Amino acid sequence: MKKAVILLSGGLDSATVLAMVRQQGYACYALSVDYGQRHHAELNAARLVAQTLGAVEQRTMQVDLTGLGGSALTDKNIAVPTKMAAGIPLTYVPARNTIMLSLALAWAEVLQSTDIFVGVNAVDYSGYPDCRPEYIAAFEKMANLATKSAVEGQFLTIHAPLQHMSKAEIIKAGINLGVDFSQTVSCYQADLEGRACAECDACRLRKVGFAQAGMADVTRYRKHQ
Amino acid sequence: MKKAVILLSGGLDSATVLAMVRQQGYACYALSVDYGQRHHAELNAARLVAQTLGAVEQRTMQVDLTGLGGSALTDKNIAVPTKMAAGIPLTYVPARNTIMLSLALAWAEVLQSTDIFVGVNAVDYSGYPDCRPEYIAAFEKMANLATKSAVEGQFLTIHAPLQHMSKAEIIKAGINLGVDFSQTVSCYQADLEGRACAECDACRLRKVGFAQAGMADVTRYRKHQ
Repeated sequence: MKKAVILLSGGLDSATVLAMVRQQGYACYALSVDYGQRHHAELNAARLVAQTLGAVEQRTMQVDLTGLGGSALTDKNIAVPTKMAAGIPLTYVPARNTIMLSLALAWAEVLQSTDIFVGVNAVDYSGYPDCRPEYIAAFEKMANLATKSAVEGQFLTIHAPLQHMSKAEIIKAGINLGVDFSQTVSCYQADLEGRACAECDACRLRKVGFAQAGMADVTRYRKHQ
Repeated sequence: MKKAVILLSGGLDSATVLAMVRQQGYACYALSVDYGQRHHAELNAARLVAQTLGAVEQRTMQVDLTGLGGSALTDKNIAVPTKMAAGIPLTYVPARNTIMLSLALAWAEVLQSTDIFVGVNAVDYSGYPDCRPEYIAAFEKMANLATKSAVEGQFLTIHAPLQHMSKAEIIKAGINLGVDFSQTVSCYQADLEGRACAECDACRLRKVGFAQAGMADVTRYRKHQ
């Protein structure tokens, strides 16, 4: 059985990716990264989602980015924006996807897996540079020069199956594959129980996604919507 | 004063890089990474070297790679080889330089620095794939697609000033710049006081380097040499 490493945040997108990869017949190794994000409840969601969707293993690695700051998600002095604005938002975390993909690369090499899956999306997304197709392609190229496995001819593919899907399409695909979206947490400032604020970019994109998909929004909110 | 992020392991090469960067007039931010390496004494050496060579700040970030294993440096069940062998050695740590450069990338972006320096070397080195010039070039290309800074036109350079120098040349350059190599620890299995084994690849390369440079070997060994 082929092994795959899946970056699993605990949000809606990566849960759908995990379900897709499982359906393709891979043995799934889910990697979550505790980088000091505000929305720590996401990590509990990741564990639950991995269990529900039958991952062989779920691992949470820690890298403390709060000391560096530079983002509303890792610096408590920067408020999470509640209005969508032009440009790259304050919730951008410097080099986050590069750090997370690097950790996935390490685990994939140890597992002798040549497939890493990541739930980045370039349609209904927040404008983060490290979600763009050209970034993913460049990471893959770099990764195939970085490892002993690659030198030995085991080439790695970074799969981004959601890249060109809308949020509504992702939600429909997830539901068809049995993802329980009530287990997932997208909100940038979810409370400890994982209940969403309904106001941040992540909440807005998610809410619109459910509406456009014609599906009931199963998100657990702090206030009645 | 331009800021630079320098990956500082506490070994001979990166200490020389720090001295070079300081001489070029940069404000130096030294980043060390505690990834669970056997030779933990290296990290104490990094702090000392950063202080001696006048870094503005030295930061040690933690990423625990021991849970992943796959290397003699992070898995205590794999012995550090004491004979040089063909191929990539057991001391190779999966994706190590990619992880460390990713952390440097995050810090550089927060500092608004566009210069990262790394002491990789492709002459007297251990054959690690992530020390090759083509790897460094691919990382730089990826990094310039990854960040908000790059999107805003602040392009990053990954400098590898030792790339084409022999160990003897590096030692001579370091001595000319005032590096105290007795503070540095290269040994893969140094004891807690940083005393070297004299037998591992890192010790051998270092010893030959001092000899070829015609310099006294100031390394602190566990046994009298």
